[in-house]
Amino acid sequence: MAASVGKEVSNKQLILRDYVTGSPKESDMYVKTSTIKLEIPNGSKAVLLKNLYLSCDPVMRIRMNRAEDSIFASYTPGSALSGYGVAKVLDSRHPDYKEGDFVWGPAEWEEYSLVEEPNLTKIHHTDVPLSYYTGILGYPGITAYAGFYEICSPKKGEYVFVSSASGAVGQLVGQFAKLTGCYVVGSAGSQQKVDLLKNKFGFDEAFNYKEEHDLNAALKRYFPNGIDIYFENVGGKMLDAVLLNMRDHGRIAGCGMTSTYNLDEPEGIKNLMFIIYKRIRMEGFSAIEYYHLYPKFLDHILPYIRESKIVYVEDIAEGLENGAAALLGLFSGRNVGKQVLAIACE
Amino acid sequence: MAASVGKEVSNKQLILRDYVTGSPKESDMYVKTSTIKLEIPNGSKAVLLKNLYLSCDPVMRIRMNRAEDSIFASYTPGSALSGYGVAKVLDSRHPDYKEGDFVWGPAEWEEYSLVEEPNLTKIHHTDVPLSYYTGILGYPGITAYAGFYEICSPKKGEYVFVSSASGAVGQLVGQFAKLTGCYVVGSAGSQQKVDLLKNKFGFDEAFNYKEEHDLNAALKRYFPNGIDIYFENVGGKMLDAVLLNMRDHGRIAGCGMTSTYNLDEPEGIKNLMFIIYKRIRMEGFSAIEYYHLYPKFLDHILPYIRESKIVYVEDIAEGLENGAAALLGLFSGRNVGKQVLAIACE
Repeated sequence: MAASVGKEVSNKQLILRDYVTGSPKESDMYVKTSTIKLEIPNGSKAVLLKNLYLSCDPVMRIRMNRAEDSIFASYTPGSALSGYGVAKVLDSRHPDYKEGDFVWGPAEWEEYSLVEEPNLTKIHHTDVPLSYYTGILGYPGITAYAGFYEICSPKKGEYVFVSSASGAVGQLVGQFAKLTGCYVVGSAGSQQKVDLLKNKFGFDEAFNYKEEHDLNAALKRYFPNGIDIYFENVGGKMLDAVLLNMRDHGRIAGCGMTSTYNLDEPEGIKNLMFIIYKRIRMEGFSAIEYYHLYPKFLDHILPYIRESKIVYVEDIAEGLENGAAALLGLFSGRNVGKQVLAIACE
Repeated sequence: MAASVGKEVSNKQLILRDYVTGSPKESDMYVKTSTIKLEIPNGSKAVLLKNLYLSCDPVMRIRMNRAEDSIFASYTPGSALSGYGVAKVLDSRHPDYKEGDFVWGPAEWEEYSLVEEPNLTKIHHTDVPLSYYTGILGYPGITAYAGFYEICSPKKGEYVFVSSASGAVGQLVGQFAKLTGCYVVGSAGSQQKVDLLKNKFGFDEAFNYKEEHDLNAALKRYFPNGIDIYFENVGGKMLDAVLLNMRDHGRIAGCGMTSTYNLDEPEGIKNLMFIIYKRIRMEGFSAIEYYHLYPKFLDHILPYIRESKIVYVEDIAEGLENGAAALLGLFSGRNVGKQVLAIACE
């Protein structure tokens, strides 16, 4: 049993103040410090977790909306945010977990969590950074893997475009595309990210969308023969420009539309008829529905990581006090690579 | 050899006056009468056709645009419209066709055509109306068949919505859906069409979209559990409302977006993120790419037609003088059923 078990300790949480409309501000969240007794009630099958790394995900913005019929459960104002994270098991009454295990899965944004019905994945490979289980070895990784291989049906030599390409998912999609023998171009929001795409992740080309006043022209420049596969992370104007540049029988994997999450009324997509003209397949997906591929995915990716044939860039902020800024940075593009919040030492 | 062969006869054509922007008018087209000598030049492998029925298709509007890089070849101002039709072979130097054959395929909007490189399908079943080969037994039929069975992957018990449901394709999709054991609702633009959908084609429900000020509410009324399959013929506001009402893993077959064809700047689709939220597959297709299924399709549908288990409603206008009105009626919804233009007796 871990040394701290049985003690009452302080437990910081990052709390949502109220539902959000429009762009969230740091003041929409606050840190609350209370105490927690590190013990599991008798008769419970709970696990007691020390949270180590929290994943900053764009979808968390959607859960800040007041929306009774939303697809994504809204947060409760006054309660902690939640998402995914990596934790260490301090104590367990659940047969699947034991003290000292590292796990990843659903996580509250707090230092310690008592989880009554744990649905966590045990981490068996600890020779790679544990924080990777919020990203390349967690749902962002499954997202890239399922989205690219299952949804996009890539073939060698095809032309692939990835938006938000230096983010948690995009950087991996680009590397999968290169391993498949595709030509791949990424867009990102700064010169630093563009350099990363070309020099670190091996994208054939990359551009800063903020410096292109005509996205259609930019895409024509990089894809004079058109785009076979678009890995969609942003929506909005970029999607409209992409639709104009798709090739016949192109495929669009609908992973996210981050450009729309802060808008009460999203911009309309005007070029959707190209889905018909070009016989395009556009398909939304959720990594959760591909979780069954996780063992196969790990077998695929771990050797590449160990041989540095796939690399991963993280942007690690520290402490729940910096959680709101880290989370909101996703929407201004401040993060470089996968945004992680580290809240405790391993 | 047909009696008229060798003679010089008058040959009316329906000519496009100039490229069109916005909504086309009847005056954008005119009938021109010239003469044609009904003979095939020596050394040619042409066929000489007497055109009987011409198909009025929404896509013809797109071809009236001046668009150098359009997917659909623009018409040439001063030349006849073209599309698909049914014809009788008056004379042939081509080994695949002989005098007296009935054929369907690409057709000029004129009474007689000399076709140098014929790419026509021979009609073997003449116990059904020949005009059907512009519709239920031509590309609209293949469109409904491929779009519903191949793109929509329907399962018994699923909820199906068809827009433009009384049109050339929609009426057939609805009947295929009923044969598959689906619940199917259609939208159309008049009470007469709504009655037709319910009483003739066997749709479970139908509504007049022009009388619904809130399409989202209308769809919620007919689909309290949501829509599994949407057969998309119109685009625009209807698509936006449908996206709000799709079920998880729904499928949208992108067949046409007639509401957008007369707009220089189409309305934007605002709810596209539901493709991601609901993991929807939206896929555009073109019947031409499914032409290889035509024999299988005929085997499937001819018995149903002969037993009146599938019915088909045509709206037949007569004479090239009425061609412009018939064609433009597609966009005001004046036609009831498949719009055909009959230009000669069989």
